[in-house]
Amino acid sequence: MATPYGGPASAYRQTGGMRATTLHAPLDIRYTEVPDPTITRPTDAVVKVVSSCICGSDLWSYRGENGPIDEPFTIGHECLGEVVALGSEVTSFKVGNFVIVPFVHGDNTCPHCRAGFQSACQNVGFTVSGQAEYALVTEAEGSMVRTERPGDDLLPSLLTLTDVMATGWHAAVMSGVRPGGTVAVVGDGAVGLCGVLAASVMGAERVIALSRHEDRQRLATDFGATDLVAARGEEGEAEVLELTKGIGADAVLECVGTDQAMKTAFKVARPGSTVGFVGVPHGVELPVRRMFQRNIGLAGGMAPVRRYLPELLDLVLAGRIDPGRVFDKTLPVEEVAEGYRAMHERTAIKVQLTY
Amino acid sequence: MATPYGGPASAYRQTGGMRATTLHAPLDIRYTEVPDPTITRPTDAVVKVVSSCICGSDLWSYRGENGPIDEPFTIGHECLGEVVALGSEVTSFKVGNFVIVPFVHGDNTCPHCRAGFQSACQNVGFTVSGQAEYALVTEAEGSMVRTERPGDDLLPSLLTLTDVMATGWHAAVMSGVRPGGTVAVVGDGAVGLCGVLAASVMGAERVIALSRHEDRQRLATDFGATDLVAARGEEGEAEVLELTKGIGADAVLECVGTDQAMKTAFKVARPGSTVGFVGVPHGVELPVRRMFQRNIGLAGGMAPVRRYLPELLDLVLAGRIDPGRVFDKTLPVEEVAEGYRAMHERTAIKVQLTY
Repeated sequence: MATPYGGPASAYRQTGGMRATTLHAPLDIRYTEVPDPTITRPTDAVVKVVSSCICGSDLWSYRGENGPIDEPFTIGHECLGEVVALGSEVTSFKVGNFVIVPFVHGDNTCPHCRAGFQSACQNVGFTVSGQAEYALVTEAEGSMVRTERPGDDLLPSLLTLTDVMATGWHAAVMSGVRPGGTVAVVGDGAVGLCGVLAASVMGAERVIALSRHEDRQRLATDFGATDLVAARGEEGEAEVLELTKGIGADAVLECVGTDQAMKTAFKVARPGSTVGFVGVPHGVELPVRRMFQRNIGLAGGMAPVRRYLPELLDLVLAGRIDPGRVFDKTLPVEEVAEGYRAMHERTAIKVQLTY
Repeated sequence: MATPYGGPASAYRQTGGMRATTLHAPLDIRYTEVPDPTITRPTDAVVKVVSSCICGSDLWSYRGENGPIDEPFTIGHECLGEVVALGSEVTSFKVGNFVIVPFVHGDNTCPHCRAGFQSACQNVGFTVSGQAEYALVTEAEGSMVRTERPGDDLLPSLLTLTDVMATGWHAAVMSGVRPGGTVAVVGDGAVGLCGVLAASVMGAERVIALSRHEDRQRLATDFGATDLVAARGEEGEAEVLELTKGIGADAVLECVGTDQAMKTAFKVARPGSTVGFVGVPHGVELPVRRMFQRNIGLAGGMAPVRRYLPELLDLVLAGRIDPGRVFDKTLPVEEVAEGYRAMHERTAIKVQLTY
């Protein structure tokens, strides 16, 4: 059966439904059967997921902090896979291609995309069933990036390029990390750790990671952190200032999204610097007076993953970065609920799901 | 009588007191006698004011919107004048020098100053009796800029360099104005008009001035505005978006400081752009969610006037900019109260005070 736009949608249909991670209520997440995604527009593609994972930002929904859950919905926005169906306008790909799927989809041709902000594409879309058997990619032509199907060793690192590594990179770009500079990274989740890695790759001389978990501290150090600050709040801020001789960091990456993290970011940023923020803001009240008095800017937001993908893919394939190390737990996708629990309870940094 | 640091403080002492503008209660401003400023630190200088003016930001205090006025205080931070007394460490100047006094003083040697953010100097100070006979300049060595005493025709333009022109310039710098770009300027006060001038000098191809007063529109046009938007709020925002084909401006200057102005700035900024803000924020709640979703940054704050002074002075002396045109009313300093009333009632854009 052909789709309205000619893609062989039937190729991936099995029983008329697929299995997907669905959220039913706060803390109630399941792996259940839902309808297969289908090609409904000529710019769509469907990808058979080969590898996916759980994002720290999924936890906001999981905890019910993104508003009430009126009915169950699929969740998951980080996945890699094989193309199984293509809309008629997706001409650069073929069924069977192995693709990296940015969590945010864009046509890569509109003015916002051309300016490098594909996450604000005029035809923006998102992966919404990444932790499933199949995922729909809207604006597939402008979003997906093809690569050889990697060995299992490279899979985790490529998977991080769909979101967390690109997001950490975005924080570093937007905060203006420069070679030789001093960078502070607030947040030791997967994105924060990727931010440390990004700042290091970009040539920062000093990378101060605010991290109080030993396992994360170790990874931060491996990723290039030169200094670790375990204390939080005022004490942690004072430590960073001391490390920078009272001046503050030249660039600060805010990789959490809470009010406390944001306040800390502005406290440790030197006058004239920029806080690059990529944590989805929840309850954040920006200190506009301090920003004004100290000339500390704020830049960032949802990462334009597609913009960074070619460069990051090269870095991974060349073995220069190994961001897949942020995964410290691997589970079969059927046990996704256990993965959410582990990340919620902070017994895992980031969980990879296998198929 | 010598001061503790050797400056000939007595040179400017007349009757033991000077006349200065003082604020007594909301809307109650007077020209009264107060003690002369004196050299108390080796980095101080005292300037005999030759020309001063009223700033839009003075109106916040005038209206009582900066908190209660417990006792009368001197006001005014924009002035030019002749050096009459110098602390022992102010070695690049002599009594009699004609100087431009940045409203914010800095040593120009600390790390923040060296990074170009003199307004966050570790020894920051402010002109606090600018609308008076004499003004104290703390950190005089690093703050004041000497020039030949100009003719009366140049005086107004040089006077704007102490604050408003440098502030409009700062907004343009921080918003990332680039040659060929489209710039929107929110606010048609003196700073906003200077922002239009700055964007134009920096080579913006299109400068959209949000201005609804005819006299200000005329000046904005003379300063380089290519488009005028008179409507405010949603209607004005829609007009700017229409002018930019729905894309938004490449750079936005927020030159007011109110919540409405800030919201408008973020509404007309294209994804990935920066709002350069220089209006002292009053009641501003930043739209952090929109900033995140659209990747619109915020940068700016108190202008590091000293950083821009040499360049702006050259532009004025070369006749390339004439920011003094923002003054549309001139009064003897003794009639300063009338000047405040005129600006408060918006019958004047900016009032120059003569001596």
